[in-house]
Amino acid sequence: MKLIQSPGGLRLKMKGIMVICDGMGDRPHSEHGGMTPLEAADTPNMDAMADEGLVGFMDVVAPGVPPGSDVAHLSLFGYDPHEYYTGRGGFEAVGAGLSLSPGDVAFRCNFATVDDDLTVMDRRAGRIKEDADKLMPAIRGFRLDVEGLTYEFHHTVEHRGVLVFRGKNLSRHVSDTDPHKVGERILKSTPLEPEEAAERTAEALNQFTLKSFEALKDHPVNLKRIQEGKPPANIILSRGAGTLPTLQTIPQKYGVKASAIAAVALVRGICKVVGMELINVPGATGGLDTNYSAKAEAALKSIKENDLTILHVKATDVASHDGDFEEKRRAIEKIDEMIGVIRREVRGSNVFVAVTADHTTPIAVRDHMGDPVPFLLWGPGVFRSGVGRFCERTARKGNAGRMRGPDLIHELLNYMGFSQKFGF
Amino acid sequence: MKLIQSPGGLRLKMKGIMVICDGMGDRPHSEHGGMTPLEAADTPNMDAMADEGLVGFMDVVAPGVPPGSDVAHLSLFGYDPHEYYTGRGGFEAVGAGLSLSPGDVAFRCNFATVDDDLTVMDRRAGRIKEDADKLMPAIRGFRLDVEGLTYEFHHTVEHRGVLVFRGKNLSRHVSDTDPHKVGERILKSTPLEPEEAAERTAEALNQFTLKSFEALKDHPVNLKRIQEGKPPANIILSRGAGTLPTLQTIPQKYGVKASAIAAVALVRGICKVVGMELINVPGATGGLDTNYSAKAEAALKSIKENDLTILHVKATDVASHDGDFEEKRRAIEKIDEMIGVIRREVRGSNVFVAVTADHTTPIAVRDHMGDPVPFLLWGPGVFRSGVGRFCERTARKGNAGRMRGPDLIHELLNYMGFSQKFGF
Repeated sequence: MKLIQSPGGLRLKMKGIMVICDGMGDRPHSEHGGMTPLEAADTPNMDAMADEGLVGFMDVVAPGVPPGSDVAHLSLFGYDPHEYYTGRGGFEAVGAGLSLSPGDVAFRCNFATVDDDLTVMDRRAGRIKEDADKLMPAIRGFRLDVEGLTYEFHHTVEHRGVLVFRGKNLSRHVSDTDPHKVGERILKSTPLEPEEAAERTAEALNQFTLKSFEALKDHPVNLKRIQEGKPPANIILSRGAGTLPTLQTIPQKYGVKASAIAAVALVRGICKVVGMELINVPGATGGLDTNYSAKAEAALKSIKENDLTILHVKATDVASHDGDFEEKRRAIEKIDEMIGVIRREVRGSNVFVAVTADHTTPIAVRDHMGDPVPFLLWGPGVFRSGVGRFCERTARKGNAGRMRGPDLIHELLNYMGFSQKFGF
Repeated sequence: MKLIQSPGGLRLKMKGIMVICDGMGDRPHSEHGGMTPLEAADTPNMDAMADEGLVGFMDVVAPGVPPGSDVAHLSLFGYDPHEYYTGRGGFEAVGAGLSLSPGDVAFRCNFATVDDDLTVMDRRAGRIKEDADKLMPAIRGFRLDVEGLTYEFHHTVEHRGVLVFRGKNLSRHVSDTDPHKVGERILKSTPLEPEEAAERTAEALNQFTLKSFEALKDHPVNLKRIQEGKPPANIILSRGAGTLPTLQTIPQKYGVKASAIAAVALVRGICKVVGMELINVPGATGGLDTNYSAKAEAALKSIKENDLTILHVKATDVASHDGDFEEKRRAIEKIDEMIGVIRREVRGSNVFVAVTADHTTPIAVRDHMGDPVPFLLWGPGVFRSGVGRFCERTARKGNAGRMRGPDLIHELLNYMGFSQKFGF
């Protein structure tokens, strides 16, 4: 616990855990009695915390605007994405462990399969895994003929990788080479803004793409894959050009020491960029089989040494994209057990807990939608909502009204005693 | 119905009808048991839809800011008026059927009566109608001495007209020549910004105004009017300089095909500028006598070929400006019958219906006020509010909270499946 001098004397600094349940918000489902997965789930811990605390609903970006995962997390961490969003690639690269300098441009990449005409046969090269590592040296060896530009390529997981362009006068305003569809030719990257930097970057990306094909098409690893009846990983397709945003980190802005527990590379990247320490939890996979109790224990351990800990769970979104109501309900119940571990431990202490989602992914739609998400904020001295349950419906009639994404962390920091006065 | 490829597979595209009841919002009225006209009206259809759907209240611009009709509709169509509002004249001109090019400046005009000293005797020249057409050639014949500038003048309805300046280096930042008051001299238009374009435009407007007086004062039509004891229409007064805003139309922004049913020229102009097809409905007058069922039938027909249809009703605002509680109540009841026709037809289908007002015009004030307006959003799979009735009071305790003007159409498009993801 910290004490700081304030005009009213010594102000107590408290702690906060923010649980982000990816894609947890949903819509009434006619096949399930008009209930949402959150309503159908048995969630005694979140229900009690909602009843005892603040409950409301939140437009993570704006009403009716579906946020991407990157935009959603920036917003939940207090950064207006209209100002701070600079493309996905940068966060992805940082999440994969690369360090980016201002001006560097990063891309999300796939090992893919194309025919001789450069038409995409398989966007994931048969979901290639180990073989991708063996192909890495071949993709690192060539020179791009764009002055002052160097590149780095890293294989991350499965068929995925990250490409980084380093140098001066580069731009993220370039189009993808990935056509996002099987049966279409790879795309030529073009500048999206009339600027020399974008022309240079698009030129470099096109060179890299063609050279990756030259370097991979007759590679022994691929010849062996073809012999084995597997699709060769004979090209690197790129998308989502991004840079790092220029921002004040959360420690800089609020004076809090912050940590994050997250398995997904993108979320890890954003957490790192905003100045959070990344905690690795064995068994936390980002999938439906993630180790929930290990995550709860890690959060409880981490909050001892930090002021703010983010706990991100991906499983709800995975089930939503699969359109699986029962799986989503089960994931929510496991999340509730995880939150129960935290609740029992911090009850009566100086720790506030916020629970929310980064966006709504309705089972019936299987994609991010622009519906508001529910949230709760629980801890010592907050007003009691008395709503009984935690769900989309009670959130709409709660005691905290309708807010925007960046507001929740600010309310949490305010209760924790870390809010920054505006004016004197 | 459309299907589009989304990461989750084929996403169903649905339809939406947005009913805008001009000036419908009001305040409690002590002479009517503290009820608003909406509360006093018998509105079984809107009540049922509010009960079954989302209900909330909305600041069309911002709390306490009364929106003009032009600003209100821009906002309801999803365009922040702080960014997109470029004066009334441009919308009025487009609504009157003129085509405007970027850079053209348009004015709303009145045929008016002045004495020899150019003091206004009647701002509407005795609400002149047919005679105005006969005066048109005289106003079209003269030359303005401003380099590269041409003008067009059109009589629209009754005493009203539209003046358009075409050419380069023009500006909408000029003051009105219309003093807006009887007994005052006409005003000299002056630049409102220190720019050459505004100087040129003000100069042209002053020339036009004086030349209209020269051309009209001894016109045979006016001499005859004087003989008949009618005020001569001997000058054109101008106000509300405007250009067309540069914007992405609704079809461009969201990929929806949109149509609008509206009788008022200004609203028609805005609908056209944002890319909606204008539907003409015989008997739809914009007055209290408008043909409501014809409007409902037209909306039902139009939504078959469009994704989104706007249905604007002016009668509520007319009654409000007249300060007539009973007339407003009756207009609301007719609107409810009109909505009932739509409700019965689309019930159980893929059509969402939103109902709201563009601003509050309290009977007691007889002018636009900055109070929030109620709204409802009804259709398959929305959360049920259970509020029982649709009125200003239940809207404040609904399940959709408090929103801003541009949010409603975004929520509607989100349910329709046309929202655009921000980020990845």
